Amino acid sequence: MPPLPPVNGEGAVPPSKTKLVHHPSLPQLLNQARHHSQPTLVVRDAGGEAPAVPRSDSTRERDRRFDHFKTFSGRLERQLSALRGQPQDPLPDAVDIERGHGAASKISEEDTDEEEDVPSADRYFAALEGPELETLRSTEVAVLPKDELWPFLLRFPISAFGMCLGVSSQAMLWKTLESEPSTTFLRVHPAANHVLWWISVALTVLVSVTYLLKVVFYFEAVRREFHHPVRGNFFFAPWIACLFLVKGVPRPVDEIHHVVWYLLMAPILCLDLKIYGQWMSSGERRLSKVANPSNHLAVVGNFVGALLGARMGLRELPIFFFAVGLAHYTVLFVTLYQRLPTNVQLPKELHPVFFLFVAAPSVASMAWARISGEFNNGAKLAYFVSMFLYASLVVRVNLFRGFRFSLAWWAYTFPMTSVALATVLYASEVDNVGTRAMAVGLSGISAVTVTGVLATTVYHAFVRGDLFPNDVSIAITRRRPKFSKILAHLRLSSSDDKELVFSIPSFSSNSKLGAYSDDSASNSKMSSSSDQSPAMANGHGRSAEP
Amino acid sequence: MPPLPPVNGEGAVPPSKTKLVHHPSLPQLLNQARHHSQPTLVVRDAGGEAPAVPRSDSTRERDRRFDHFKTFSGRLERQLSALRGQPQDPLPDAVDIERGHGAASKISEEDTDEEEDVPSADRYFAALEGPELETLRSTEVAVLPKDELWPFLLRFPISAFGMCLGVSSQAMLWKTLESEPSTTFLRVHPAANHVLWWISVALTVLVSVTYLLKVVFYFEAVRREFHHPVRGNFFFAPWIACLFLVKGVPRPVDEIHHVVWYLLMAPILCLDLKIYGQWMSSGERRLSKVANPSNHLAVVGNFVGALLGARMGLRELPIFFFAVGLAHYTVLFVTLYQRLPTNVQLPKELHPVFFLFVAAPSVASMAWARISGEFNNGAKLAYFVSMFLYASLVVRVNLFRGFRFSLAWWAYTFPMTSVALATVLYASEVDNVGTRAMAVGLSGISAVTVTGVLATTVYHAFVRGDLFPNDVSIAITRRRPKFSKILAHLRLSSSDDKELVFSIPSFSSNSKLGAYSDDSASNSKMSSSSDQSPAMANGHGRSAEP
Amino acid sequence: MPPLPPVNGEGAVPPSKTKLVHHPSLPQLLNQARHHSQPTLVVRDAGGEAPAVPRSDSTRERDRRFDHFKTFSGRLERQLSALRGQPQDPLPDAVDIERGHGAASKISEEDTDEEEDVPSADRYFAALEGPELETLRSTEVAVLPKDELWPFLLRFPISAFGMCLGVSSQAMLWKTLESEPSTTFLRVHPAANHVLWWISVALTVLVSVTYLLKVVFYFEAVRREFHHPVRGNFFFAPWIACLFLVKGVPRPVDEIHHVVWYLLMAPILCLDLKIYGQWMSSGERRLSKVANPSNHLAVVGNFVGALLGARMGLRELPIFFFAVGLAHYTVLFVTLYQRLPTNVQLPKELHPVFFLFVAAPSVASMAWARISGEFNNGAKLAYFVSMFLYASLVVRVNLFRGFRFSLAWWAYTFPMTSVALATVLYASEVDNVGTRAMAVGLSGISAVTVTGVLATTVYHAFVRGDLFPNDVSIAITRRRPKFSKILAHLRLSSSDDKELVFSIPSFSSNSKLGAYSDDSASNSKMSSSSDQSPAMANGHGRSAEP
Repeated sequence: MPPLPPVNGEGAVPPSKTKLVHHPSLPQLLNQARHHSQPTLVVRDAGGEAPAVPRSDSTRERDRRFDHFKTFSGRLERQLSALRGQPQDPLPDAVDIERGHGAASKISEEDTDEEEDVPSADRYFAALEGPELETLRSTEVAVLPKDELWPFLLRFPISAFGMCLGVSSQAMLWKTLESEPSTTFLRVHPAANHVLWWISVALTVLVSVTYLLKVVFYFEAVRREFHHPVRGNFFFAPWIACLFLVKGVPRPVDEIHHVVWYLLMAPILCLDLKIYGQWMSSGERRLSKVANPSNHLAVVGNFVGALLGARMGLRELPIFFFAVGLAHYTVLFVTLYQRLPTNVQLPKELHPVFFLFVAAPSVASMAWARISGEFNNGAKLAYFVSMFLYASLVVRVNLFRGFRFSLAWWAYTFPMTSVALATVLYASEVDNVGTRAMAVGLSGISAVTVTGVLATTVYHAFVRGDLFPNDVSIAITRRRPKFSKILAHLRLSSSDDKELVFSIPSFSSNSKLGAYSDDSASNSKMSSSSDQSPAMANGHGRSAEP
Repeated sequence: MPPLPPVNGEGAVPPSKTKLVHHPSLPQLLNQARHHSQPTLVVRDAGGEAPAVPRSDSTRERDRRFDHFKTFSGRLERQLSALRGQPQDPLPDAVDIERGHGAASKISEEDTDEEEDVPSADRYFAALEGPELETLRSTEVAVLPKDELWPFLLRFPISAFGMCLGVSSQAMLWKTLESEPSTTFLRVHPAANHVLWWISVALTVLVSVTYLLKVVFYFEAVRREFHHPVRGNFFFAPWIACLFLVKGVPRPVDEIHHVVWYLLMAPILCLDLKIYGQWMSSGERRLSKVANPSNHLAVVGNFVGALLGARMGLRELPIFFFAVGLAHYTVLFVTLYQRLPTNVQLPKELHPVFFLFVAAPSVASMAWARISGEFNNGAKLAYFVSMFLYASLVVRVNLFRGFRFSLAWWAYTFPMTSVALATVLYASEVDNVGTRAMAVGLSGISAVTVTGVLATTVYHAFVRGDLFPNDVSIAITRRRPKFSKILAHLRLSSSDDKELVFSIPSFSSNSKLGAYSDDSASNSKMSSSSDQSPAMANGHGRSAEP
Repeated sequence: MPPLPPVNGEGAVPPSKTKLVHHPSLPQLLNQARHHSQPTLVVRDAGGEAPAVPRSDSTRERDRRFDHFKTFSGRLERQLSALRGQPQDPLPDAVDIERGHGAASKISEEDTDEEEDVPSADRYFAALEGPELETLRSTEVAVLPKDELWPFLLRFPISAFGMCLGVSSQAMLWKTLESEPSTTFLRVHPAANHVLWWISVALTVLVSVTYLLKVVFYFEAVRREFHHPVRGNFFFAPWIACLFLVKGVPRPVDEIHHVVWYLLMAPILCLDLKIYGQWMSSGERRLSKVANPSNHLAVVGNFVGALLGARMGLRELPIFFFAVGLAHYTVLFVTLYQRLPTNVQLPKELHPVFFLFVAAPSVASMAWARISGEFNNGAKLAYFVSMFLYASLVVRVNLFRGFRFSLAWWAYTFPMTSVALATVLYASEVDNVGTRAMAVGLSGISAVTVTGVLATTVYHAFVRGDLFPNDVSIAITRRRPKFSKILAHLRLSSSDDKELVFSIPSFSSNSKLGAYSDDSASNSKMSSSSDQSPAMANGHGRSAEP
């Protein structure tokens, strides 16, 4: 398809003119609707001319491309509604227009690009690939520019909490190695626990503060992460990491006030109700569709909570969380083992994410041992299941290949630590040379793995500098572009092509010709929505770009 | 398709002539085959002229349209075979014809409308919609007239036993509130249990007698209910209600003779063998196809039986039923949670039927507590699972909308009562202010809910008078009509159009033009089959129309 | 499609000429590639003229058709690689050719018939039918001749170990009847156990030696059995049978050295890791695809091992195997009960294979009873589940029809024996007239069933002589033939038609016209590959044809 010529000669308008015409008003929004109609033109200009704009001059224009994800780029109403967590009308100015859609939503949904709504679960599966759904398919185009580095906060994923999981579970492990009778012969110095625990605390605080900033400044990005079929499960990670921290605190756990446990379990319970409810009653995010190994994170929190609670001296509520975890773990275990034909996204090759399989049963065994007061047969059943799954992964270790490092790997180290922990406990119950050797061996493997992942992380962070690549999984378009729609828009808008020029300077995405339309359409919308309050544009510097 | 003109001018024959030509014989049946061939004509007459017939005069004609579902409208052989439960040739007169079909059944099945066979499970899903599969899809036409009230017995569904479940479980609850140590502080008067129990007994007797009359007089309708994917599960309800009655009897349960328990569990075991066998080994009614929340009724009976049996002092058989229930509950729980793509009939909105989710685990917890002799960890696990599911439904309570009241709602109240009961037992084990408050609170919610449903029932029964609407879910056609078949019939019968008039007066269904043929064809067949014994037509008054 | 005329008149070459041109070399292999191109011609000749060849003269040619499955028919490298279990290049001579394929494997795979690779799981389902996937579909053609008896070893299936299972479990049963307190009143003589045990030992040795010969001489056939979705599960049978033998040894089990148990459990653990890993992580053999009742054999071994280990005085490892078994049994039980739409191969009628359903829970109940030291509630739950499943099958006994006897039936008798055994143990725990009657009754049924199957086996072995029919399930082609490919080959090879004649004499399969091409192509390949070492052809007499 050859690029269309500018309809009335205004397509070549210089970018510097744009500032003049941006004004946040209903007319502007109506214009925006027409902008959609000339995507080809728009994209050509974006790809062709935007880089020619002087860098210093285009800084503010570039910023605007991320405004769609920014919390404080729109009106105050939008911010508040977003904070309240209810996806309201993303363009408050367009209320009268949207009302019209409300009546005939089924049809109008076809015609409007409501980019502000979170993409559907299907859309995530359709647009992304890879074991963590982290790579954009070749036929897709991101709504954010792929050829340059995004603001740091936009690139900071929730899976960064995996680091906290990895390190704080190590703190737990070394505390246990120090205190359990089966490993006293190792004479582990308390300093190991102390050092690791303080590192964990520092790391958790750092990651939490950073992510909180993301929540504040890029709430839309956080929303999209929450609805991501894989990433969403990582929202359990902060609370699990905190539970690990409490469990690994360098003094007896039962001295800690119970209210800490209640405070940490409340969000887990809420997430349980939300996520499991989606599994069961939602059409779109039902389990037979979204099941993947990362769902284990959504289950393991219950067991960790049960373990800590029982350790702190609570009795009934740990059983409650254990029961909830057990019921849903059974469902998840069966579903993942079946590999239903609807779970096609699971790749043929294995991936570190599979190690999450061993997390739940190993933590469950410890939790049940604490609840029962002894490492009884029930705890042993869970423990041995985790050991078998561990062995099952280890013998397939040569199938773990062909994937890129990501921060999420940290989350896949804590299952190894859990198994090591459970083995230490088991060895205290069944104390012989074999179990002691196993306890030491697994602890060693776990420590080595964490060190390895740490080294890889440092390498990626400081040597290659790509620890936080552009997080394309939150930048997918809301729906697949339709060629017929593009043509229809083109024809429709040939009469009002004067407004066309307004949005041109905002584009600089690396649009691919095959799928350009959706990208350009969404960009044009975003640029418009960000333009609603030019006064606030100066405040964009608050985004914590390093 | 324009309505065809009457072929030889006899289409306008007055309805009063019909009585003259009705005669139950083979020739008449052969005529009936030809009747199929002019459905358009027939329907037009039905929709256009039937209402013009004087009501008093058409009473017997109207009755005949229901004869297809009547037990005593055919020959004696048919009644007996029906009572024996074997679906035999529904039209004994047509044996010679049907024999011919037997040989080449695969092909002939295409050409004949064997309405007497129960529709397949697929057919139920294809023809009905709604969470209880209780509404006819717009493209379907019922085999019974939709525009007027059917005989009362035909409208009396098996789900009426839900009322017995709701009230008798309340009797149980108040007995428990009176006797359990955790709720003695409420000082519940024994009269509550007494009154509720006697009401339950009266209600159960009333419903049972009425349904028995339906079994006797409309066995075909009962058969169709039994094969209905949702309604079939309600056949467990009578026995569960009786178990509740025995459990709630206003004196110690262990005084009751064990034979009562055996008598009540025998039908449940038979139903278990039948239903679970279908899940596993049947192609058409396999679990991945028919799974829906009402299946919980098919599981909960085992737990109720185990609970009562253990309460009565039995030891091994309660464990047997508990084991059977547990195994199949696991299967059901996983299947329902997965929401397999084959279970598409589940609606997006929640529905009271989802409350059945909490029934099984709460009863199971009580049963296991009774079997073990204490509310141990196993019982607590089940109890907490039910509590979580309860909470999961309560937080989604605003999703419960957009559905019509039905008698089946009663069945959805007993899970709340079960949870309340389990909580009272749990509070006796873990006795503190919190658990007592929960016990009282849940009992209150349960009582309020039952009162609310009672009020709604009374309102629908006496004010709006639509408590028993036409039960279209038993009136679906056996298969989707085919247009080509209709045309073929038309061509075939253009020569023998004289017999056409015989069946005209029987039609008054609100046939829709798009799907008229199946409706008219089945109606014409039914009218003919009912005509076999005019002498018995007078006996139709026995049907207990109120 | 009319048969093509011989291209240059050489198509009518007499078969006796063939011996002259067979030579194992690269040129010969290149020829072979061209042979594919004239399948029509080839098949016509095969069907038409091959029978005309004198029998005595064609013996060596006939032998060659099985060479593809023979271990020692190729070069030494191939034998070794096969023994090492790694499917290497089947035709070492063709390395240079195959290298070329390696680069563009996706495309070239379309063009070559790599018959040496094991057919995919999909292929097994597509080509075979019946509850044991033991019958070739009418549209398929076997790679081995169907019209004459194959070498005995090729017809000796792994399911022959079912006999060992059946007899050795009887030995166990009679030992238990003799020793358990609940059945001492029967005064069973120790001789029963002695005789049965020695028969079992003899039978197991005989079957094992025979199958070992098959492994040695027809490794390709064994590989294909291992990858057969049903047959593969029978590879657990030898080890289970040995466990039964150890358990049924006519003296106290705890006198046996523990190393025997370790030796027997090692292969079971390896198979567990292999098979369960396939269920979970393999795309092609995932559980939702291959689930069928014979998978129970893959689970029951863990329980048998746990039972024997606990009986021998071990403590932790039996719990390990019990845990592994329980987790995977849960998955399997749910999956089989759901009857996922992807498990279409399960037939509508029941089949003795369904009796495997009762094996796992009954053995699990015994194992748990031994692990716990008493027949406690956990053991009872498993026991009652197996009883219910047993009853569920017995009431459907009239659905067991329309299938042919096979050796695998023996495997379906041991579940009955297991139930009988568990009942005897249960009766020792709950000792009353009812349980004793049940124990005796079920033992009787089990003994009668084994006798019946024995009689049927003897009848088939010695009277009808068809105990070991041609095992077509290992003889399916690797992929479905494509018509377009055939035509392309035809066009390609029209220039080098002289080599065509070489392979003609090798064909005598009953090729059906609709699916001839794949058959002929594979046959031509096999004949060629077997021709590589004519010197070894004389050694084929080692194959133990009776």
